[in-house]
Amino acid sequence: MTNAPKKVVLAYSGGLDTSIILKWLKTEYDCEIVTFTADIGQGEELEPARAKAEMLGVAPENIYIEDLREEFVRDFVFPMFRANALYEGLYLLGTSIARPLISKRLVEIAAQTGADAVAHGATGKGNDQVRFELSAYALNPEIKVIAPWREWDLTSRTRLLEFAEANQIPIAKDKRGEAPFSVDANLLHTSSEGKVLEDPAVDAPDYVYQRTVNPEDAPDQPEIIEITFEKGDATAINGQAMSAASILTELNALGGKHGIGRLDFVENRFVGMKSRGIYETPGGTLLLEAHRGIEQITLDSGAGHLKDSIMPRYAELIYNGFWFSPEREMLQALIDKSQEHVSGTVRLKLYKGHVRTIGRWSDHSLYSEAHVTFEEDAGAYDQKDAAGFIQLNALRLKLIAARNRRTKS
Amino acid sequence: MTNAPKKVVLAYSGGLDTSIILKWLKTEYDCEIVTFTADIGQGEELEPARAKAEMLGVAPENIYIEDLREEFVRDFVFPMFRANALYEGLYLLGTSIARPLISKRLVEIAAQTGADAVAHGATGKGNDQVRFELSAYALNPEIKVIAPWREWDLTSRTRLLEFAEANQIPIAKDKRGEAPFSVDANLLHTSSEGKVLEDPAVDAPDYVYQRTVNPEDAPDQPEIIEITFEKGDATAINGQAMSAASILTELNALGGKHGIGRLDFVENRFVGMKSRGIYETPGGTLLLEAHRGIEQITLDSGAGHLKDSIMPRYAELIYNGFWFSPEREMLQALIDKSQEHVSGTVRLKLYKGHVRTIGRWSDHSLYSEAHVTFEEDAGAYDQKDAAGFIQLNALRLKLIAARNRRTKS
Amino acid sequence: MTNAPKKVVLAYSGGLDTSIILKWLKTEYDCEIVTFTADIGQGEELEPARAKAEMLGVAPENIYIEDLREEFVRDFVFPMFRANALYEGLYLLGTSIARPLISKRLVEIAAQTGADAVAHGATGKGNDQVRFELSAYALNPEIKVIAPWREWDLTSRTRLLEFAEANQIPIAKDKRGEAPFSVDANLLHTSSEGKVLEDPAVDAPDYVYQRTVNPEDAPDQPEIIEITFEKGDATAINGQAMSAASILTELNALGGKHGIGRLDFVENRFVGMKSRGIYETPGGTLLLEAHRGIEQITLDSGAGHLKDSIMPRYAELIYNGFWFSPEREMLQALIDKSQEHVSGTVRLKLYKGHVRTIGRWSDHSLYSEAHVTFEEDAGAYDQKDAAGFIQLNALRLKLIAARNRRTKS
Amino acid sequence: MTNAPKKVVLAYSGGLDTSIILKWLKTEYDCEIVTFTADIGQGEELEPARAKAEMLGVAPENIYIEDLREEFVRDFVFPMFRANALYEGLYLLGTSIARPLISKRLVEIAAQTGADAVAHGATGKGNDQVRFELSAYALNPEIKVIAPWREWDLTSRTRLLEFAEANQIPIAKDKRGEAPFSVDANLLHTSSEGKVLEDPAVDAPDYVYQRTVNPEDAPDQPEIIEITFEKGDATAINGQAMSAASILTELNALGGKHGIGRLDFVENRFVGMKSRGIYETPGGTLLLEAHRGIEQITLDSGAGHLKDSIMPRYAELIYNGFWFSPEREMLQALIDKSQEHVSGTVRLKLYKGHVRTIGRWSDHSLYSEAHVTFEEDAGAYDQKDAAGFIQLNALRLKLIAARNRRTKS
Repeated sequence: MTNAPKKVVLAYSGGLDTSIILKWLKTEYDCEIVTFTADIGQGEELEPARAKAEMLGVAPENIYIEDLREEFVRDFVFPMFRANALYEGLYLLGTSIARPLISKRLVEIAAQTGADAVAHGATGKGNDQVRFELSAYALNPEIKVIAPWREWDLTSRTRLLEFAEANQIPIAKDKRGEAPFSVDANLLHTSSEGKVLEDPAVDAPDYVYQRTVNPEDAPDQPEIIEITFEKGDATAINGQAMSAASILTELNALGGKHGIGRLDFVENRFVGMKSRGIYETPGGTLLLEAHRGIEQITLDSGAGHLKDSIMPRYAELIYNGFWFSPEREMLQALIDKSQEHVSGTVRLKLYKGHVRTIGRWSDHSLYSEAHVTFEEDAGAYDQKDAAGFIQLNALRLKLIAARNRRTKS
Repeated sequence: MTNAPKKVVLAYSGGLDTSIILKWLKTEYDCEIVTFTADIGQGEELEPARAKAEMLGVAPENIYIEDLREEFVRDFVFPMFRANALYEGLYLLGTSIARPLISKRLVEIAAQTGADAVAHGATGKGNDQVRFELSAYALNPEIKVIAPWREWDLTSRTRLLEFAEANQIPIAKDKRGEAPFSVDANLLHTSSEGKVLEDPAVDAPDYVYQRTVNPEDAPDQPEIIEITFEKGDATAINGQAMSAASILTELNALGGKHGIGRLDFVENRFVGMKSRGIYETPGGTLLLEAHRGIEQITLDSGAGHLKDSIMPRYAELIYNGFWFSPEREMLQALIDKSQEHVSGTVRLKLYKGHVRTIGRWSDHSLYSEAHVTFEEDAGAYDQKDAAGFIQLNALRLKLIAARNRRTKS
Repeated sequence: MTNAPKKVVLAYSGGLDTSIILKWLKTEYDCEIVTFTADIGQGEELEPARAKAEMLGVAPENIYIEDLREEFVRDFVFPMFRANALYEGLYLLGTSIARPLISKRLVEIAAQTGADAVAHGATGKGNDQVRFELSAYALNPEIKVIAPWREWDLTSRTRLLEFAEANQIPIAKDKRGEAPFSVDANLLHTSSEGKVLEDPAVDAPDYVYQRTVNPEDAPDQPEIIEITFEKGDATAINGQAMSAASILTELNALGGKHGIGRLDFVENRFVGMKSRGIYETPGGTLLLEAHRGIEQITLDSGAGHLKDSIMPRYAELIYNGFWFSPEREMLQALIDKSQEHVSGTVRLKLYKGHVRTIGRWSDHSLYSEAHVTFEEDAGAYDQKDAAGFIQLNALRLKLIAARNRRTKS
Repeated sequence: MTNAPKKVVLAYSGGLDTSIILKWLKTEYDCEIVTFTADIGQGEELEPARAKAEMLGVAPENIYIEDLREEFVRDFVFPMFRANALYEGLYLLGTSIARPLISKRLVEIAAQTGADAVAHGATGKGNDQVRFELSAYALNPEIKVIAPWREWDLTSRTRLLEFAEANQIPIAKDKRGEAPFSVDANLLHTSSEGKVLEDPAVDAPDYVYQRTVNPEDAPDQPEIIEITFEKGDATAINGQAMSAASILTELNALGGKHGIGRLDFVENRFVGMKSRGIYETPGGTLLLEAHRGIEQITLDSGAGHLKDSIMPRYAELIYNGFWFSPEREMLQALIDKSQEHVSGTVRLKLYKGHVRTIGRWSDHSLYSEAHVTFEEDAGAYDQKDAAGFIQLNALRLKLIAARNRRTKS
């Protein structure tokens, strides 16, 4: 097997599945393993992953554990929110946006450690395999990517557990039985899918939600907050400046407390099938609402409508795994260009699962009370101009109407 | 004045402003007046308009009063909702969509009555003048359109009232003072703007909202409803088939009761300025959510993404007044083509200002549990196919990466 | 091999390669073979294919030979030309548009003959495999598609010839040596690629061109022709009404004689690589020019610009093989809607490799000399209207400029 | 008239019409006049304009004469050609792209000279008024713009000549009679319209063409040239590096000599009517062909298709006069981002009115002979990957087909 990997960087969570992959890689390819475990805000301790990797035979110098939260929010989440990106009208792309960052670090660590391959734990049915692999290949066209779920014959829970036992991989008690659904989490969102969620006609049970309270249990009093933006990115909450990751963390707390950001969604996967997911994006939902609020007064219609028109394509690219593609970068250049004056503050009202913009102001505002006022406008606007404006916009419609009459008779 | 109108069909509400216009038209042009008063669900009695028109000297046979609610919802609102149309990401186009219908009837009545002109009460600063006039010209290229607000010198409240008094137009007591904001309403929405709402940094006062309860005052118990669609249009609520207008009426009641559909919005007018409006669209908000829900399982990604990508343009056309334009009709043909299988039922949860889809099902569903399942899929999907799919999607990215390396060194 | 095909409909040209495939299918799968040979204007006799199929053991009732030229032009080429479709700005999609029709007939014949599979002779590197197979699956989700070039081990010319000899497949003398390039032809175009054409820096040798004279050898006198359109489709040349296929045949003769329609092109294949092709589309090049010419006077800007904006996506769909997809059909509905008045006549000048529109007229024309004239226009257009039109279009730009000044200081 | 301009910068050609405007402005507004005459490659001497302005009473320090050719090509023409911009599929925007530069200098000179207004000689029927004025307002929201053709009563040739005579404006003999058509020229193109060209059914007479020989009179021998690009801009012809304006000048000579770049076109003006123009863009036609040629090998499909999809909007913005708008700048950022590797050389063949790319090469090429070859590819591409690629692309189509069968029965 001349093409077999010699040294593999594995995206390693420390959990049962990636531990099995770790062992399987060693068995299957007799290769050296490097583990990479990242904190992207999934809310789990990372150090246990170190102990577990060591126990599974990974050399200490081959264990990489990193806190990527600031980079995640600053370089991935915030650029995406500048676009008001929603996949298929509703989904805030919480899983999609995390994958390119993981791949980027896998490829970088491969370069550092002289590894010739990277490996991930995504299955062959989902989008994540695509996102991981397209990102990896775009950053290193020579890299090998190993996706054990597409290769091995551990195709049932029973066989996985057998493999674990045969290879002295510890199995937590609660992993013996099957989880009633599958979860992915990071600083932007938690997604849940599979098993009890597979019938899209059936309500998601309450225990699926992990990050937001049930709106019915949220505080009976609304909460008013203010988010400040500079050049399209949130920089402060209630006047207090914070780092990117801190802002998102705080918004998650606020949104979660008020039951905001739940989405029950059936989406089209890039691999061709539909799937149903439950998403919780409390902070992201506040951020989107506020970003739209500040754009309302700082972007003109030309810029805003252009952004709106390319947004679906931009969101699709991220969903499909093309973050590191020329076309995503071109769209990002367009979007970023639009954000130069998207600075100011938005006031939001949070209450029982819902958030609404109720005020916004900015030194960069294009809103002109002088023009719009119902009162005397002191000549700011000449209503007679509208007559000419309408006549010229109507001209082609009149010519069509006359033509259609003529050709009908 | 050879170009002066001889007979004018006036969009007449029976209110003070259009009564002044009626008198002014007669005075200014010495022309015959036909009044047209339509019920498009604005929630006002129409018969008083008849008495008032007669009192102002309009001949009984020149008074047209019509209930257009079914036509409004069936031929305008529903086709628009097939597109999930939102202007600037958030606005459900409640005012925009009503204008073409009014214009259509004005032009038709002009043809019936031999009138050479139509007139409306929209000002020179807003979008409605454009919508009225583009529609009128598109339907009759020879028609004259008179927009008194752009012509006359009654530029202050005082002068309007003086004119009314001088012409024996009765003035309701509450019209003596100035209203604190301006309102437009129809079966789809109520919009409020101007005066106390002019500063977009300042919260809209509670008394502005007329059609939805404050979410804090909404029922403490959520309500679950089901909406059924056929070919993209809602046809039943909770299993009960209803006419188009009845469905929207019922959804308004449901949404309004739960405080759903409030929007505080700064938008870009077609005439070039920004304005701030408060919109209440209770039924429409439910309808959009449900329509998206049913599309999630009945539209494939190709159809759905194409619809999403042209939606902003479609919404902009309606907002700008181009309902009767070739390009709106072309987009409608595209949208309608997509709706052939958009049939099924959606379950919504309404609670305290928010609505969420929590279930959906359809005989036309494209969702395949056989394909997506985490369980054994009996060969429905071969995970190995994903490897080839990714390799070919990655090929260009690899070639780019190799090129970029080569040209850097 | 329970999944093995039992009866296969093969797209059969009668040539060496598809004869080898025929034999290989029988050998490999021990299945019954149905051959399908279509005349789509490739300019070859079809009856020899019958004799050859019989000789290779195909039962007479399993040999299908059909003239599809009218269907090809009427239902595929003409609808596509309504869109002015060009892939990557230049390519008239001559190969792409023929594949769905072949697939459609393959699937239909499979249904008629009770076959469970279809087979084609396209390789694993190209677009045609994708086009054949997506079309087949879209028309019959249960059909099996066999692509021998992706399966077999006949990976060199030598091994193919050995297989042919071993199986008594006659080999024409000129097929012993390798062809210097590969050719595909139909009524719309001839494409050549591979071998001597593989270096995109090197000029294509003259002998590659088969359907158009070298412009230098074309007549020294220009030729003027007129093409008449009805609802977007060409219906007559020089006033003589003809069937769809006859029109394209005649335009091919005219264009070919004048050396028109040659294209040396490097394109992006759907499978991820670039390839270089030489295309000759003489009639199509005239048709595109003329269709644009007639649209210039019969489509307004709203319709025309919308068409232009979706054209690249439409062309990409056809190129990628998605003719039978909801999104192509949605776009077709939009395009067809626009063509209701695209009727009239265009005058073209053909000379030495180039074609230009030099005149066009139509009862459906929207061109208004009364409006555009430099002479006195008798009030058709009021130049003062332009002032208002500009003021309102400028308003947002002024507000931006004022904002930018303000925030800079 | 408190709003009357005090000092006006006039776009002054030195010709009869702008001389009349000069005098009319002084007469009408009693204002000081600054003249601005620019060489943008229109091919006329500028110094006579100085003498004429002086003769008409303009102070020497108020006469601005500038050579803007390099700026025109470098900052306007070349950025536009990076987009392969074509208005309505065919027009290279030669007039449109020159207007913003003129306006920019008018506004800058106004700032330098303390003028409060600018004036131009465009009529109220055309696009140029819009382009001049939108650009001016976008650069200085306070500037006044005077468009005499929309204001004055000199509405016939006779009255213009009377005004000239009454004001001692010299009238060249050939201006006494009416020109048979109207001309605009700059380094990019010559356009002709009006009068003898007003009927779009009638061929343009030969004498209209001024910059290109009749293809029938072009050399009988083809000419081969090579154009080199760096980052999307042409930098050399036949290996000889040149400035931007020199390149376009040289390409004009080459194209003109071979009769290349003639266009007989009916277009949709922004002001709502159709007009017919004859455009000659010899150098631009070569440049577009070559730029596409180099993009074919240096842009991948993701970048190329995105560019193609936004091109019509970009072209429309320039045509409509929105060069200085946020959305044009956003699109430019997207386009420029794509051009980082658009470097290399293209070989063109020029002959009798037509130009064709016949070769292209680049160090930045993405073309991979290793992948595309018909020969053994040494494992660069695994044809079996295509099977998986097709299966996953087909999945949704199969699900649709199965659904459609199910719901039909």
